[in-house]
Amino acid sequence: MSEQISGGYLLFLGHCRSKLDTKTASGILQWRPDRCIGQFRLSEDAVDLGLPDIDPVEAVTSGARTMVVGVAPVGGAIQPEWVQPIIAALDAGMDVAAGMHSKLSDNPDIAAAALTNGRQLFDVRHASGKQPIATGEKRLGRRLLTVGTDCASGKKYTALAVHAEMARRGLEASFRATGQTGILISGEGVAIDAVVSDFAAGAAESLSPNNHPDHWDIIEGQGSLFHLAYAGVSLSLLHGSQPDAIIVCHEPGRQHIDDYPSYLLPDIMACIDANLTAARLTNPDVRCVGIALDTSRLNDTERNAVIRKMSAETGLLVFDPVATGASELVDLLVRIWPGSDYPNR
Amino acid sequence: MSEQISGGYLLFLGHCRSKLDTKTASGILQWRPDRCIGQFRLSEDAVDLGLPDIDPVEAVTSGARTMVVGVAPVGGAIQPEWVQPIIAALDAGMDVAAGMHSKLSDNPDIAAAALTNGRQLFDVRHASGKQPIATGEKRLGRRLLTVGTDCASGKKYTALAVHAEMARRGLEASFRATGQTGILISGEGVAIDAVVSDFAAGAAESLSPNNHPDHWDIIEGQGSLFHLAYAGVSLSLLHGSQPDAIIVCHEPGRQHIDDYPSYLLPDIMACIDANLTAARLTNPDVRCVGIALDTSRLNDTERNAVIRKMSAETGLLVFDPVATGASELVDLLVRIWPGSDYPNR
Repeated sequence: MSEQISGGYLLFLGHCRSKLDTKTASGILQWRPDRCIGQFRLSEDAVDLGLPDIDPVEAVTSGARTMVVGVAPVGGAIQPEWVQPIIAALDAGMDVAAGMHSKLSDNPDIAAAALTNGRQLFDVRHASGKQPIATGEKRLGRRLLTVGTDCASGKKYTALAVHAEMARRGLEASFRATGQTGILISGEGVAIDAVVSDFAAGAAESLSPNNHPDHWDIIEGQGSLFHLAYAGVSLSLLHGSQPDAIIVCHEPGRQHIDDYPSYLLPDIMACIDANLTAARLTNPDVRCVGIALDTSRLNDTERNAVIRKMSAETGLLVFDPVATGASELVDLLVRIWPGSDYPNR
Repeated sequence: MSEQISGGYLLFLGHCRSKLDTKTASGILQWRPDRCIGQFRLSEDAVDLGLPDIDPVEAVTSGARTMVVGVAPVGGAIQPEWVQPIIAALDAGMDVAAGMHSKLSDNPDIAAAALTNGRQLFDVRHASGKQPIATGEKRLGRRLLTVGTDCASGKKYTALAVHAEMARRGLEASFRATGQTGILISGEGVAIDAVVSDFAAGAAESLSPNNHPDHWDIIEGQGSLFHLAYAGVSLSLLHGSQPDAIIVCHEPGRQHIDDYPSYLLPDIMACIDANLTAARLTNPDVRCVGIALDTSRLNDTERNAVIRKMSAETGLLVFDPVATGASELVDLLVRIWPGSDYPNR
């Protein structure tokens, strides 16, 4: 069903000089530094993540098992100058993973080299394998899903931060990735927006299977119920996840849906209500445990003001997982669901 | 984008003796008798639709251009004994269309015969071609979408009946198919549940493109917002269709979601509200114009009672497109949107 990518990673950066275009690589390094063995750059002026510069052969010697294409150029295509380095990685004995629109396996030279070397290609933006139809059956274990007022509002970051805080406390929790960067960070997951729509809720069910009753799945959300293009993806993920808890992610000050100026952002309480109403179909006990804000464009005074204001207006825990951390949120989860302090086995 | 299947049709029935399993064929015959040139049965005790029994060569002589596999056995697989007749159709110069889970094109002998003869294979349950991301831009023309309290609640039938009534009056209207039987009936459409979820709303947009301001697209709905497995499909279709009008389809007396006994059917007003609320995202002026009931399991007295009761409770036009027809519904559309009596060109 889901991808299973072997670590450690060699992060391939090509010639890329834009930090924005290497955010896949920097995301992996931020959340899984233990996985990142080195970087592989094709020129000295390419973005430097501060990892050792090594080539595929050195990487394998140092324990790398997968080269991850950590660059996402506009258009998402494999660049011609990447083909030889990718083949070199396969020849050195590594798998190769990428999260681009164009597939590694669609390049005949890359596909041939993978076959010759008996290595795997992971195109994590494309769903692999057959997904089941959703059953709607209640699964054991607890689930938290991040939802949002829009795309790119901090859903992945919030889920990773909550999971990291739980892991730090030794709680039993898994991060469940639903997008390409998340999958590369965790080494597994399902690119939910790449699943055929009939099977999307079923894929979401299989992503967080039956578990220990006190285990938490912290599920990365996608899109928004208020996104004219992706709401169906969000709804399938919401129904299949059967979340016990949702966190609504939001960037204060954003006026309209990203890239769609004529679609205004929903009111945050309307967004919470819509998500809870829809989520109750598969889990009547769902509750909203907090609002995660991306306040990176605000100064400290503005941040504190917006958190205080939104807290007062909603009566909910409001936090910024970057600036203020996820500690209070995890305190709250443990308080609401006492078994959550079940220690990691 | 969408399928374009050539008529007339030769309806292939195989050895099938179950009327339930030939409902694709009988649906095509019911709605497009003008397209149906003959039936092709492999044994005399197979279901008889009352069409001339002809073989592919005779069919081509009589003007058939596509053989449609009108049988849907449990499991949806191509039966071994169908392969030779399908190849015979291709050899005779026909395209072949089917709406099964297994693809015609995945059978190497069938694929080879299609290639040799330069004929097309239409696997209408599988989406073909690349679909766009939704833009949310308002399109000209009017759109009616059938939605439902569940799967199999009359959405296709209702849309076909409304379209047929509009066509009878000479109004400018198109039936837009979103499922395999609908596509085989109309000869074109998009199997929306087979589209990758990221593109489902975009596929729905492309299904009912810009049109004459008084033209009606009558769009076949899929699933239900209250269906735990398919709600995401329904929401994508709702957002991409930008309907001006919705009709809610419902089978009175059904207690739970088909095949999911622990999921109760929604209250009909809750279902209308949920659909209108979601639809307003892309068309704030959407309205519910009626409730279409499948009363085939009721007698006349029961039917009249349920229609009267639901009418009084909801204040909406309640009708059964089979038993009472879609005439009153079309009267209502013309009254609400006066330009709708724009004659067909």
